[in-house]
Amino acid sequence: MKDPRELVDRALAGQQRAVAQLISRVESGAADLPEIAALLAPHTGRAQVVGLTGSPGVGKSTTTSALVGALRAAGKRVGVLAVDPSSPFSGGALLGDRVRMGDHALDDGVFIRSMATRGHLGGLAWATPQALRVLDAAGCDVVLVETVGVGQSEIDVVSLADTTVVLLAPGMGDGVQAAKAGILEIADVFVVNKADRDGAAQTVRDLRYMMSLGERRDAWAPPVCKTVAARGEGIEDVVAAIDGHRAWLASSGEGAARRRRRAEGEIEAIALEKVRVRLDKGAVAEFADRVVAGELDPYAAADQALNTL
Amino acid sequence: MKDPRELVDRALAGQQRAVAQLISRVESGAADLPEIAALLAPHTGRAQVVGLTGSPGVGKSTTTSALVGALRAAGKRVGVLAVDPSSPFSGGALLGDRVRMGDHALDDGVFIRSMATRGHLGGLAWATPQALRVLDAAGCDVVLVETVGVGQSEIDVVSLADTTVVLLAPGMGDGVQAAKAGILEIADVFVVNKADRDGAAQTVRDLRYMMSLGERRDAWAPPVCKTVAARGEGIEDVVAAIDGHRAWLASSGEGAARRRRRAEGEIEAIALEKVRVRLDKGAVAEFADRVVAGELDPYAAADQALNTL
Repeated sequence: MKDPRELVDRALAGQQRAVAQLISRVESGAADLPEIAALLAPHTGRAQVVGLTGSPGVGKSTTTSALVGALRAAGKRVGVLAVDPSSPFSGGALLGDRVRMGDHALDDGVFIRSMATRGHLGGLAWATPQALRVLDAAGCDVVLVETVGVGQSEIDVVSLADTTVVLLAPGMGDGVQAAKAGILEIADVFVVNKADRDGAAQTVRDLRYMMSLGERRDAWAPPVCKTVAARGEGIEDVVAAIDGHRAWLASSGEGAARRRRRAEGEIEAIALEKVRVRLDKGAVAEFADRVVAGELDPYAAADQALNTL
Repeated sequence: MKDPRELVDRALAGQQRAVAQLISRVESGAADLPEIAALLAPHTGRAQVVGLTGSPGVGKSTTTSALVGALRAAGKRVGVLAVDPSSPFSGGALLGDRVRMGDHALDDGVFIRSMATRGHLGGLAWATPQALRVLDAAGCDVVLVETVGVGQSEIDVVSLADTTVVLLAPGMGDGVQAAKAGILEIADVFVVNKADRDGAAQTVRDLRYMMSLGERRDAWAPPVCKTVAARGEGIEDVVAAIDGHRAWLASSGEGAARRRRRAEGEIEAIALEKVRVRLDKGAVAEFADRVVAGELDPYAAADQALNTL
């Protein structure tokens, strides 16, 4: 184990290996995380966090890779966190993401990291914000957080991001599905990828119609960009939309409000994890057996579990 | 507010309205939940909980509806919990689910309920298990929990279910996408829906190939069923697969292990929610501002937040 201070100093200087090692420590819940967090804190708060989400198959990884290229061309340092549910396959040749991301592997202005959510309570809520802090402190101007799927993980990414980009593709399920998945109210930028396919114009129309029905939590009107990410088409529009949202976040005060909410969520998640670790596991297992047998209800069991603290 | 005891007595007698009112109390976090939970506890533990998950557009709602019909035909009482991410659209005419579920709306052996996850930490982990207890106590033999999306919500449904059914459809993304979403290791039963479409046989082959590469957490070999749920085709095979898994759960001891883990998770989630509610919100907001400013790290802030208890 390296000295945390030395590791943090090297990460602050932008050394890829140190950044990777720090994120590994975050993921594994290393004992010196509080010390690492304290060393990073004064160097954080600069990076724009951009969440990218959408159903499997819409082209998230390809779009992420194209965005990295465009942001690099604009002289920005870029971090990428690809958050996958844990899988026995991860790390294997099946992960097309990392293969595609290999385009940027030798660029020292790009930091790429896959994270497993490991399925524990809170998912993204726990390790990802800490990994973001590492990339922020390492000097990334933009950090792209790519999540698989829709549903809870999408809501989680919104709670992390300054700007949420929602990807759709023609024929991947109609507007009703999009509404069901709750994506309309969370998107700051829409991207209709694979826009060379049949039905792209219809997908854009459906989206605009659904947007006209819904109510947003804020006054921003999300732009709809059309891309063919595999050929790099339309990517500059997405970058412009992200920049536009950043400017609006700053001028409206919504940016500060989002960052405060994010920090609140982060503090709460860490505090609750500390409590969870301290619960007496043997006692909880015993209470659980009585709950399964119908002898105890889970509320009474929770009170008894808290009494073991 | 009705007396909880009266409401529970009427739910135990299978009255639909009382069941609906109890679940509403669970969703809204009513103050008398601990009392309700204590009254329900002795009547729980009978229902088989079947989770259904898969990407938007694979036909989850149609399959759920067809399964309800088949289970009713077999004389079983059935509960359905449809868990959607919260959406400003819910309740509107856009929710095709409920329209389709309308087939069963007048059947007093079927209890149907949509739940919003409301985006809070833990998502499903919190309200859904309590709603399951209500349906279990009301005499449901099977409760189907339908979740939108893949990713974290899918992992959550596994933690709730005795049996997890994963739906796929031809052309909804290839086997690599399935592997990325981590669905292979969580499925107890696979359903390839829309099996009359081109590519269904290929989807089944891809699935079997991926399964041959992966490792399961237990000794069960998940069957792969082909359905055209919209026409009711193949649904009896799915019912048989679910029954087969139930028998295996009982004979292998895995069923008891899953229920214990589920109760442990439930106790933990309730305990942590109790702690969360007790945290001093004003203090957390103040710490959050200092975290955003880089003056405080989130670990130190979490310690200070716990000190406010």
